[in-house]
Amino acid sequence: MRKISLLGASGSIGVQTIEVIRQHNDQFELLAFSVGGNVKVAKELINEFSPLVVSVQTKEDCEALKLEYSSSNIRFVYGEEGLIEVATVKEADVLVNAVMGSVGLVPTLHAIECKKVIALANKETLVTAGHIVMEAARKHQVPILPVDSEHSAIYQCLQGEKEKNINTIILTASGGSFRDRTRDELIGVTREDALNHPNWSMGAKITIDSATMMNKGLEVIEAHWLFGIPYEDIQVVLHRESVVHSMVEFHDTSVIAQLGTPDMRVPIQYALTYPDRLPHPRGKRLNFMEMGKMHFEKMDFNRFRCLQYAYDAGKAGGTMTTVLNAANEVAVDAFLNGKIDFLTIETFIENAMSKHTIQMAPDLETIKEVDLDTRHYVRSLID
Amino acid sequence: MRKISLLGASGSIGVQTIEVIRQHNDQFELLAFSVGGNVKVAKELINEFSPLVVSVQTKEDCEALKLEYSSSNIRFVYGEEGLIEVATVKEADVLVNAVMGSVGLVPTLHAIECKKVIALANKETLVTAGHIVMEAARKHQVPILPVDSEHSAIYQCLQGEKEKNINTIILTASGGSFRDRTRDELIGVTREDALNHPNWSMGAKITIDSATMMNKGLEVIEAHWLFGIPYEDIQVVLHRESVVHSMVEFHDTSVIAQLGTPDMRVPIQYALTYPDRLPHPRGKRLNFMEMGKMHFEKMDFNRFRCLQYAYDAGKAGGTMTTVLNAANEVAVDAFLNGKIDFLTIETFIENAMSKHTIQMAPDLETIKEVDLDTRHYVRSLID
Repeated sequence: MRKISLLGASGSIGVQTIEVIRQHNDQFELLAFSVGGNVKVAKELINEFSPLVVSVQTKEDCEALKLEYSSSNIRFVYGEEGLIEVATVKEADVLVNAVMGSVGLVPTLHAIECKKVIALANKETLVTAGHIVMEAARKHQVPILPVDSEHSAIYQCLQGEKEKNINTIILTASGGSFRDRTRDELIGVTREDALNHPNWSMGAKITIDSATMMNKGLEVIEAHWLFGIPYEDIQVVLHRESVVHSMVEFHDTSVIAQLGTPDMRVPIQYALTYPDRLPHPRGKRLNFMEMGKMHFEKMDFNRFRCLQYAYDAGKAGGTMTTVLNAANEVAVDAFLNGKIDFLTIETFIENAMSKHTIQMAPDLETIKEVDLDTRHYVRSLID
Repeated sequence: MRKISLLGASGSIGVQTIEVIRQHNDQFELLAFSVGGNVKVAKELINEFSPLVVSVQTKEDCEALKLEYSSSNIRFVYGEEGLIEVATVKEADVLVNAVMGSVGLVPTLHAIECKKVIALANKETLVTAGHIVMEAARKHQVPILPVDSEHSAIYQCLQGEKEKNINTIILTASGGSFRDRTRDELIGVTREDALNHPNWSMGAKITIDSATMMNKGLEVIEAHWLFGIPYEDIQVVLHRESVVHSMVEFHDTSVIAQLGTPDMRVPIQYALTYPDRLPHPRGKRLNFMEMGKMHFEKMDFNRFRCLQYAYDAGKAGGTMTTVLNAANEVAVDAFLNGKIDFLTIETFIENAMSKHTIQMAPDLETIKEVDLDTRHYVRSLID
């Protein structure tokens, strides 16, 4: 029985993690979770899983739940402290970190110190503090198992292989909602256009990040930290079908690829069962004959500037990736709220990066400061 | 330093094995080899590698070499005994078996008993006696490393994975020289047409086997034995580009694939370096952007009857795969010598199989008898 705590149970990855747990309830047990503001989901999950610890966003929600479940032994917690409690609950073996944004970082570090296996869907943790997280994981000998389909693919391709033999990591990109539009055709696109992703059904933030290609940029930075590969050796290839989830080229010219239908439950389940695999009876199997063709195209870094910015930030290092991420979060939020145009997302990120003076090997405090400063600055551009 | 003995040094795989050894002469040492009737190649290799043992086909060639190299310590041997001596030379770690035809079987069994790692390019060894070879390998705890590009691909895909999690093995087939012809268009095709393979440069026998799709059929049987997978779970997919060398689907719906440019030196080198990889500086790297597209199509078992016969023979088991292989060898030879039409290859195999009464779990003696009987029968059809 694998005992699981889950940060972000009401989000897209969280919901699918619950599905995986449910599907294999003889293998997995949900011990603790956080739901942000979604108290309705919290109650459903409490009734289904009888967890030990439940975390919500506000003190008020927490108090209300305590009252409602006063006859139970559930520990109700809230806020950042609450997330840390979920992440470090003593009885759990593995933490699934599926929260969005930089709020996922501190709980992950605490879980690593408590020697939990980390199943990581929270990109920002590695984008803003990859050096701290990976160093902590090494020190405490904790595996960081990626839940992103691309990084899970790479992780799978690397089984039985040696890091020293890697030539290139090849991340595939579907191209997002606007892959067939020119830059001119991006002027005036709406929130609804952008949210219409061709292959994957995901949360709003990540769907916009796919449309700007920032999602792939963040993944490049994640891959750099997860696999210890220099940015020069991380390639992005446009692959419309999202069937090849990513690849690794070795120095004997062999390429190992992981493929599948787009289904986030597969990488989630892999992270929970690693190094084993369990069946996925509700999954759709790939049918190569039906599919017929797979396409691969060159990425246009001028068309998709956010991808270029991500490489630039990654190569620059230090606090620059924190700036990239924070600026992007605020800009995407502004676009989703109808305050700025689609292409202005890029402009704001570029502005924030040009303005920033890098601090190398930043500690958590510095990262937090730079994060806040950047958000403040980008918000000032909006108003 | 990996010490290598090589059966079939003058054939296509043998020559490429020598290239790999030469490329990494700080890692590999050629200790012993056989060359069949090609004494010229034997002399070149003797001068370059100063081996311990050299085997040729005939006693005459053997005596002549002994005389010519009388001042050396090289042991010259010949015939089937010679192959066994090469395969079991005490100082060698690994046997590369790259001879053609069922002559490769007995030396392989001897090498297994001497606990040599087996790098196997000789299909017939597994096709005719898979049950004996795999049982011997288990007993002596000897790894059988495939040198075929397809089986090497599968072997690579299975690293770090568990057999119990395999759903399907997906062998890719380029389709051979005649993939775009209908059966009617196969009437009267010439030896030269058939030898013009679109992707791989290989020996004559295997190129004809690719055109009839028997090569893929033999590979299906090989895969069955190498990986312990029932025939029902081995799929063949037509893939024109020969870029995906084969794939494994696991029960969580994940598919792991191995890709590369068509270059036999890669699987040869992998078998020699396993579980490590060495660089292949003269190899051509895959460029997904240049390639653009990959195609997958359904195999037509009516169009490619030999593939159907191979599945039939494999499922029937016992001596039937020996009949399949022996009938095919004689028929292909007859086609290459202009004695029969291309489509008659199929007819002869079908005839030999219909006529045969299976003996289950045959021993080596029985296999040899059935092999000879079949050859005799098919030759009688020709004359």
